[in-house]
Amino acid sequence: MKLMKVTDPDKVMEIINEHFLALESENLPIDRAGGRCLAEPIKAPEDVPGFDRSTVDGYAVAARDTFGASESIPAMLECIGEVFMGREAPPIKSGQCCLVHTGGMLPENADAVVMVEDTDLTGTMLQIFRQVAPAENVIHRGEDLKKGDPALLKGHRLRAPEIGMLASLGITTVNVHRCPLVGFFSSGDELVPYNTAVLEPARIRDSNAPALLYLAGQYGASFKYGGILPDHFETFLEESRAMLREADLLVFSGGSSVGSRDYTARTMQELGEPGLLVEGISIQPGKPTLLADCGGKPVLGLPGHPVSALNIFAIFGKAIIDRLAGWEKPGFEMAVRATLTRNISSRSGRTDYVRVKLEKNGDGIRAVPVFGRSGMLRTLAEADGLLVVPPASEGLSAGEIVDVKIWE
Amino acid sequence: MKLMKVTDPDKVMEIINEHFLALESENLPIDRAGGRCLAEPIKAPEDVPGFDRSTVDGYAVAARDTFGASESIPAMLECIGEVFMGREAPPIKSGQCCLVHTGGMLPENADAVVMVEDTDLTGTMLQIFRQVAPAENVIHRGEDLKKGDPALLKGHRLRAPEIGMLASLGITTVNVHRCPLVGFFSSGDELVPYNTAVLEPARIRDSNAPALLYLAGQYGASFKYGGILPDHFETFLEESRAMLREADLLVFSGGSSVGSRDYTARTMQELGEPGLLVEGISIQPGKPTLLADCGGKPVLGLPGHPVSALNIFAIFGKAIIDRLAGWEKPGFEMAVRATLTRNISSRSGRTDYVRVKLEKNGDGIRAVPVFGRSGMLRTLAEADGLLVVPPASEGLSAGEIVDVKIWE
Repeated sequence: MKLMKVTDPDKVMEIINEHFLALESENLPIDRAGGRCLAEPIKAPEDVPGFDRSTVDGYAVAARDTFGASESIPAMLECIGEVFMGREAPPIKSGQCCLVHTGGMLPENADAVVMVEDTDLTGTMLQIFRQVAPAENVIHRGEDLKKGDPALLKGHRLRAPEIGMLASLGITTVNVHRCPLVGFFSSGDELVPYNTAVLEPARIRDSNAPALLYLAGQYGASFKYGGILPDHFETFLEESRAMLREADLLVFSGGSSVGSRDYTARTMQELGEPGLLVEGISIQPGKPTLLADCGGKPVLGLPGHPVSALNIFAIFGKAIIDRLAGWEKPGFEMAVRATLTRNISSRSGRTDYVRVKLEKNGDGIRAVPVFGRSGMLRTLAEADGLLVVPPASEGLSAGEIVDVKIWE
Repeated sequence: MKLMKVTDPDKVMEIINEHFLALESENLPIDRAGGRCLAEPIKAPEDVPGFDRSTVDGYAVAARDTFGASESIPAMLECIGEVFMGREAPPIKSGQCCLVHTGGMLPENADAVVMVEDTDLTGTMLQIFRQVAPAENVIHRGEDLKKGDPALLKGHRLRAPEIGMLASLGITTVNVHRCPLVGFFSSGDELVPYNTAVLEPARIRDSNAPALLYLAGQYGASFKYGGILPDHFETFLEESRAMLREADLLVFSGGSSVGSRDYTARTMQELGEPGLLVEGISIQPGKPTLLADCGGKPVLGLPGHPVSALNIFAIFGKAIIDRLAGWEKPGFEMAVRATLTRNISSRSGRTDYVRVKLEKNGDGIRAVPVFGRSGMLRTLAEADGLLVVPPASEGLSAGEIVDVKIWE
């Protein structure tokens, strides 16, 4: 029996970054560009803010007019009116002040704002009980961004703050990398479409297709389902070749039949150079994973077991999608910090993903391992997430603080 | 000057759960139901798996035929053929075995599987070097789910594993709660539409609309933008009333003008009973937040500052959307565990959200605070996420392990 050559997960990530490039770019309006990555850097086309603004509710003053003011010896200024939001402020003279609201424009000759709680207004006469320094409670023109400043770098992923920032700069269209299209095939003679109402003996429904369709969408990719490939090599290759013309990433979910894994590997060698790169990954569940570079396009062969397939797609499928989408700085995986409730043993040299259920426990969170065979989806639906046992570890102990990755 | 009455964040969450209910339900095909929450529990309509299956590649045997087998005294069985995937297995008799692949159906009279690495086949004669117990390497019919078993509870959110599980059960349509519609208005006389190319003095672009549109989509809600409301109470009320007929959640992003916050609060009192519930939240940034229940529909008044508005919508807007969507068990917030690089002071009694940048540091991650005024979007785009300083704390120290919430 031939032993599977396994590659470390970190090495697989390196291979992904070495072999695959960001897709071409397109122009999109910013209200449709969320989640996309910039294909070029963005410079500020104007100063932000565009005028000196108050950061508090109060009175715009010349700071020197307040010097020495205190509770016992207040400064006295004449209030000449109010700065209306969205309007230019009337200028003040020495000895004068003007009511201003948070975000309002500073009048000419004013260089600071006294907070309303440090004042008392009687008629037009304002008493000031606290001195202010020049620039106090003011944000200056260009303080957030100066015209020409680099605002966002190439490869930056547009989240809500970035979209807000672009909108505040008046940038309505951005050049972003295209959204990857995942082409997907299932294979295995035991599989039938998941909408099959009554199963014949020995058959199972193709449950990976709709689950992976959802995950791909969560990762910002679109998804095309090619159906269930038969254990027939010529058909396998022909259908894959047709799909790869259109798709940016080709994914197979292998059945367990001897043929399907074999055909997937052979197809990877035929579809383009350099072909098969990874024949297995030192990870559990999901070891029998294949990865190829077929003429610059990534081809991923997932194990057929649903739990393994989802785990591998969530780790390496997502990494490939992020790479194609042009994301320059992914890699801060979010997790829930929890206390492990029991010991977990693990084989050293392999990264183990253990399903856990999370429970609130006072102010903390407990991670309770859910045991079950890797093919069982029920244990995955019961679990809130996965706990990573790194390869250097031989297990984790009850009471340890662990990071739990939540399923999407 | 009237002091703002502030409510604790935990109390605001309680108010949200007490006042608002899940929206009505609809039937959706499972390939469009990802992220939705079940409006009714789901029972397994059949056994999963539907037949006894092998969990390994090996030989299906009657376990008793292997009892006593060892390296030195192997058991000898006649191999009568192969179980083809997706086909019913031929029955075996005592003294016989049959080749079976992972996931293959167990033949009649077989009750265990010997792993292929513990055997040696010569012609049709199989030597077995290790005894197996009954049920070893077998998953029995109904072991994952028995017909009639509760498979998923009401309020369970459908992620990839749940969609896979439903597909494996042949369930193609589910009854899920409707997707909430967020109706959104900006207000403030200083605001102009974000596609305004050249700003007049004292004006700023309405950057919250496209940023919140994106966030709402990330939280599974749809979004309708009602435009910028003028500081004119009758118009404010009339437009809000029209939007609330259609929207499930009404959100205002206040300008900083005196009028807009005032009109928002008055509108909340007029739109329906019981009206205004929260006038401020003990949180930073985002304290001047309003929340109302207007005839059972939630109305949220965000502060106008972009950073505050995004922070509040990400916490309380999301909680309201999750509630309307019928999610019964939200609450395990994901974060990145990192080491704080410098001391952070915080006022006790208030929950502080501090912007931080994350940096890889060997095997660990460092959280570097990004300082800047709350109105500045650049600091938010520079930051990878937010670090929570709980109200009981007076600050955090350099070297502490902290949880950083990543921006979406």
